[in-house]
Amino acid sequence: VCLLSQLSSCSRHGRVSVSPVLVNKRTNSSTPPKISVDFDQSTGVAVMYMQSPPVNSLSLDFLTEFCINVEKLEMDKSCRGLIITSGQPKVFSAGLDIMEMYGKSPERCGEFWKAVQDMWLKLYSSNMVTIAAINGSSPAGGCLMSLTCDYRIMADNPRYSIGLNETQLGIVAPFWFKDTMTNTVGHRTTEISLELGLLYSPSEALKIGLVDQLVPEDQVLATATQNMSKWLTVPDHARQITKSMMRKPTIDKLTSNREADVQNFVSFITKDSIQKSLRMYLEMLKKKRG
Amino acid sequence: VCLLSQLSSCSRHGRVSVSPVLVNKRTNSSTPPKISVDFDQSTGVAVMYMQSPPVNSLSLDFLTEFCINVEKLEMDKSCRGLIITSGQPKVFSAGLDIMEMYGKSPERCGEFWKAVQDMWLKLYSSNMVTIAAINGSSPAGGCLMSLTCDYRIMADNPRYSIGLNETQLGIVAPFWFKDTMTNTVGHRTTEISLELGLLYSPSEALKIGLVDQLVPEDQVLATATQNMSKWLTVPDHARQITKSMMRKPTIDKLTSNREADVQNFVSFITKDSIQKSLRMYLEMLKKKRG
Amino acid sequence: VCLLSQLSSCSRHGRVSVSPVLVNKRTNSSTPPKISVDFDQSTGVAVMYMQSPPVNSLSLDFLTEFCINVEKLEMDKSCRGLIITSGQPKVFSAGLDIMEMYGKSPERCGEFWKAVQDMWLKLYSSNMVTIAAINGSSPAGGCLMSLTCDYRIMADNPRYSIGLNETQLGIVAPFWFKDTMTNTVGHRTTEISLELGLLYSPSEALKIGLVDQLVPEDQVLATATQNMSKWLTVPDHARQITKSMMRKPTIDKLTSNREADVQNFVSFITKDSIQKSLRMYLEMLKKKRG
Repeated sequence: VCLLSQLSSCSRHGRVSVSPVLVNKRTNSSTPPKISVDFDQSTGVAVMYMQSPPVNSLSLDFLTEFCINVEKLEMDKSCRGLIITSGQPKVFSAGLDIMEMYGKSPERCGEFWKAVQDMWLKLYSSNMVTIAAINGSSPAGGCLMSLTCDYRIMADNPRYSIGLNETQLGIVAPFWFKDTMTNTVGHRTTEISLELGLLYSPSEALKIGLVDQLVPEDQVLATATQNMSKWLTVPDHARQITKSMMRKPTIDKLTSNREADVQNFVSFITKDSIQKSLRMYLEMLKKKRG
Repeated sequence: VCLLSQLSSCSRHGRVSVSPVLVNKRTNSSTPPKISVDFDQSTGVAVMYMQSPPVNSLSLDFLTEFCINVEKLEMDKSCRGLIITSGQPKVFSAGLDIMEMYGKSPERCGEFWKAVQDMWLKLYSSNMVTIAAINGSSPAGGCLMSLTCDYRIMADNPRYSIGLNETQLGIVAPFWFKDTMTNTVGHRTTEISLELGLLYSPSEALKIGLVDQLVPEDQVLATATQNMSKWLTVPDHARQITKSMMRKPTIDKLTSNREADVQNFVSFITKDSIQKSLRMYLEMLKKKRG
Repeated sequence: VCLLSQLSSCSRHGRVSVSPVLVNKRTNSSTPPKISVDFDQSTGVAVMYMQSPPVNSLSLDFLTEFCINVEKLEMDKSCRGLIITSGQPKVFSAGLDIMEMYGKSPERCGEFWKAVQDMWLKLYSSNMVTIAAINGSSPAGGCLMSLTCDYRIMADNPRYSIGLNETQLGIVAPFWFKDTMTNTVGHRTTEISLELGLLYSPSEALKIGLVDQLVPEDQVLATATQNMSKWLTVPDHARQITKSMMRKPTIDKLTSNREADVQNFVSFITKDSIQKSLRMYLEMLKKKRG
């Protein structure tokens, strides 16, 4: 169950992008990989498909597998570019898994949050060129994942939406979500987006700079590959030093405050009032299914 | 007499938005309230009308009354939203009252400046949703007041203007005016605006993001009310934490430098050269009336 | 030989703006002035023509002469405005002189870099109104010079380009180049620009805010002069305090790190791998001439 997957249905745009499905938690042993990677040695470009049905929710298992794969590619000197896309229909990623936050022990919540931090840190500081091929809706944590990339290409389908919509659910995007969005679309757009928990249509997202390019749905990956070629014409070392110069202050803010950020998340999410909000939300989802 | 009310007539756009009128200072005892508040308990929304003829200049008396009213609403848990608008024709607020800065003792100047700081601090950090219903011109301090709000709706009347035009008068917007504008329209637009003391027409203001929406003059308040409903669908606690996260660094800069900022203002405004500028300006206004 | 003069020919836009010419180093004694200044006492406006054939490359000699001239005008209280333009055809300035970085001693490289810092510091903190009349291509250091000004007017000729394209050559724009661009066009546009080393056509540059105005080529200087008149209607002291308030944090970052920044540049540029890149680049230029 994805924390933020349902919001599109109650957004101001009335888009329904992600079906409200409560899936049973599978046991790890029988779970197929949640990530599949195609690495083309000849181009130095890896394509990472997220394939955790139904909506690529960011569970602890998913994040762990995701980070292991990113790290493996990062260590491989022959891999210069990474394209992230979804293997699921209609959704890029629906964001953080609500089941990781509901009725869990503080320890488990803390472990989960560290994995979310890890995902962000690995992607935002990656030496690879990273391109998000956003072939579906991308709320909350899915939007954050896109924002860490060097370039964002989205399917031009008005039923899809993207944004950091946490407040709509009564939770709060932490400072490093906020910083990443501010770095991308500026202070004022971030302020109004986060306060209202806005989800944007692809064309709106392009207009405010939340994504860089829209293409027809069936051309998202091909366009990402073409763009990657252009990025790879730039000498790696100069591009990497430049990227680090742009992003280091934002990364340092989290790395020097990781533990406090975990504590902050845990004490917030385990509050009775927040747990009650999450329970009501889950019940609402069950009714929808009913 | 409003410090900045006349600038629109010498702006590059040639708009005349505020009549140059020198009013006699009334005694406090006979003064009707400068602020009137309509609070609707059923919606939790208060509308604050500024009604200090002729142009809602921000005198010490006005600011004191304004801040008392904001604080009262802030303390009232049933009040969730505040709409600020003008009860005067053609002007939202013409900004700081020049008479508070001309020929006054350093002590009095300092007292005045503290009140300006108070107004900004209370509004910029308000837990309420704040919407500016800008139904007239809004130069200098009037613009600042709008910029503290969560959302700005302006009357689409090309005779109105808005901007931080302090330099045109030979005075300087302090760092927290600058920070508030930078947070709204970005660094470069703020730089050129403040250096030239630009006043923008409503359509220009919309284009650069100084206001969020233009509507016909007679629909400003109704649109503000509709927008407020949308803002109030967001859970208060999540929105408030988010708002504080966005604004706290800017607020902390002033709160940790209030006394120095007062000293800085007092020593600047009491300079012979600045007092001479203000005197010439006042004489120019008198001639215009003559 | 200008470090970055050739990039326009391999930019994504295919513009050829600067002819690849390897000029022999002239002896200082026979060199005519690289800078010519027309100062109009009646208006208080100086026009500085860069005339170092063929492409106003920023050599140590050029920068020294440039800074002496700027300082002289800065000290002259009667000079209130400075217009910077090119006396050479088709190019404003092609940026840093590659010969100052290739095969030179660390000491000499350090001396050169200090001169680049000086140029930036003098212009970015100038009390004069500074306007760039960009009558030709303006890559890398040429773009930086423009960005220090209060206003940028560019010739609307699609064969010209402007941008900080350092990464294309395998070198890196330092943090203060980055800060100056971020202050002008924001974080995200700077990130993608610097990572890809983008050169923009005049119309693209206007769209992202890298320049403020486009005019036909033969009207660049006249438009700069008209604009200057507008800027000079603002009281100097208020404009100067405002400019300083906007730029001081950025300037302080370099002034408190000048020596480290020099060391950083010297150790980077004297690396074998970077020297090799520069040699290959020079050989490529020679072949083109062949």
